[in-house]
Amino acid sequence: MKIVVDAMGGDHAPKNVIAGVVEAVKELPVTVTLVGIEDRVKAELSKHSYPKQQIEIIHAPEVVEMDDNPLDVLRKKKDCSMAVGVKLLKQPGYDAFVSAGNTGALVAAATFYLRMIEGFDRPGIGLLIPQIDGCAFLIDIGANPDPKPEHIYHYGHMAREYMRAVMGKDNPTVGLINIGEEEGKGSGSDKQNYQLLQEKMPGFIGNIEPNQLFKSKADCIVCSGVVGNVIIKLSEGLMEAAGTVLKREIKKNPLAMLGALMMLGSLKDLKKNVDYSEYGGAPLLGVNGIVMKSHGRSSPKAIKNAIHATVREVEHKIIDRMRAAVVTT
Amino acid sequence: MKIVVDAMGGDHAPKNVIAGVVEAVKELPVTVTLVGIEDRVKAELSKHSYPKQQIEIIHAPEVVEMDDNPLDVLRKKKDCSMAVGVKLLKQPGYDAFVSAGNTGALVAAATFYLRMIEGFDRPGIGLLIPQIDGCAFLIDIGANPDPKPEHIYHYGHMAREYMRAVMGKDNPTVGLINIGEEEGKGSGSDKQNYQLLQEKMPGFIGNIEPNQLFKSKADCIVCSGVVGNVIIKLSEGLMEAAGTVLKREIKKNPLAMLGALMMLGSLKDLKKNVDYSEYGGAPLLGVNGIVMKSHGRSSPKAIKNAIHATVREVEHKIIDRMRAAVVTT
Repeated sequence: MKIVVDAMGGDHAPKNVIAGVVEAVKELPVTVTLVGIEDRVKAELSKHSYPKQQIEIIHAPEVVEMDDNPLDVLRKKKDCSMAVGVKLLKQPGYDAFVSAGNTGALVAAATFYLRMIEGFDRPGIGLLIPQIDGCAFLIDIGANPDPKPEHIYHYGHMAREYMRAVMGKDNPTVGLINIGEEEGKGSGSDKQNYQLLQEKMPGFIGNIEPNQLFKSKADCIVCSGVVGNVIIKLSEGLMEAAGTVLKREIKKNPLAMLGALMMLGSLKDLKKNVDYSEYGGAPLLGVNGIVMKSHGRSSPKAIKNAIHATVREVEHKIIDRMRAAVVTT
Repeated sequence: MKIVVDAMGGDHAPKNVIAGVVEAVKELPVTVTLVGIEDRVKAELSKHSYPKQQIEIIHAPEVVEMDDNPLDVLRKKKDCSMAVGVKLLKQPGYDAFVSAGNTGALVAAATFYLRMIEGFDRPGIGLLIPQIDGCAFLIDIGANPDPKPEHIYHYGHMAREYMRAVMGKDNPTVGLINIGEEEGKGSGSDKQNYQLLQEKMPGFIGNIEPNQLFKSKADCIVCSGVVGNVIIKLSEGLMEAAGTVLKREIKKNPLAMLGALMMLGSLKDLKKNVDYSEYGGAPLLGVNGIVMKSHGRSSPKAIKNAIHATVREVEHKIIDRMRAAVVTT
């Protein structure tokens, strides 16, 4: 199996990307093809020891920055690591692509170069989110800010196929994020989404309020890219803020500091439970190829976990499953 | 000062409402007018001792349930506690109305009976949210799922006036919740909102990503009712889930249990920092009268704090300030 990795993507590239790749190849029987500025990639790789035959390099002279216009990846920077990496998937022997770079650019490059799987109109980015018991697949978390009802319906199918193929879940259920449980709640588009899902979506269980997101109400949870992105970013910000406030409170009281030390393991377990980097990347679904978005601020561990998650998608032939699940609305 | 309280509003009414009102009148030099089914209100009141001259009762034979259609408050249940309570504000001597009942019904009743302040088109529900340092006023959290750009612009003015009048903040800044910091991010309506705020909103500082919400980026933060509602409910659900997971982890390890006991004070301080009930209710702004929405699941303390927050609005003559701040787009 050969996984292509964007060596230049993310806030801490190529450093964190390469550290994560090195960890991954030690744990997995895969070859990683690093795409990026060759000198910089080699310099970074030279800091590590690793099984040489498991990492290869393909040079790409340009880099998409995090604040570049996403369409630059198609127009001004055609030879960037992201575009070169995505295009490799069209050649035999390359199984998947992982990038921690500019999300919009990744969506644009994947859609343009790989094309959509027939039957799906727009890609969606999903994420396996931790819940109190188990996990659920949330889609879309930022590929499509203005989805039409059919896009939401397609996301439901993509999510079901992911949960079936990768998580081995039979007959996954689907819920719609909305500001009230009852039919008829939310904005005009929320209502339209509800109606279409109610009519056609297998396993549809209705609206899910955001305060129920971490309870196991449905296996697949669909929403617009704006709402999904707010959910992910707010969760991140809130846990960070709570951590900051807790540390501040603890410092006021020596007994509490000692107590915190004694429960450090539990606090770490909590962090692990809510830390998205533990769960690997966010699959970009709907395109003709396995593409994984890793967090822009990815640590080496997050990159490693994203590669693990990508390997699972390859093993479970997620694209063939998506093609077979193709739906017409 | 006379505060009207919906005795029948909320999941635990009239019990929690009346317990909270009793606490409030002991702390504040106000009279509370409880509106509700007289027998039930009297029966509940008889369980408490309190200064009799500070609580009066007005009978209302009907009750809006949490899952009623909001418009029932105007059509089928004209004599419900919520409608009767809101209408009292049109009589001299009644200063404000507090309800923990059906949000949609409260928005409908307040808009219909009190009318909008001239210059504002749609009411918004705001909330003072705790941040790592200080707090910010978030609006709208659920009154208006499909806001037009002008509504968002009006919310900015309402929020600024609230922060000025109630929080004594000079020249409050305004940010827009969006999925990216740069101009041009988000859905079509996000872009329109940005453009109008950029053009006309005093103190506008641009987009704020949801992961920055708990840092003091702006004094006033505006968003659609759907996004605001997702923010509030997700925060609630995430803190609850984190608490559940932490308790579960702690129970696995006796040392951690002891540690948790030693840092109980800090954990409680954290809870206090993130617990919205500590911050009182959510003001419904834009209408000709002081209306406060309290959480449907309000504890007595939440009701008491909502009454405190309402008194601050009355003292600071928030309606006069809103009228003076009236804007034309």
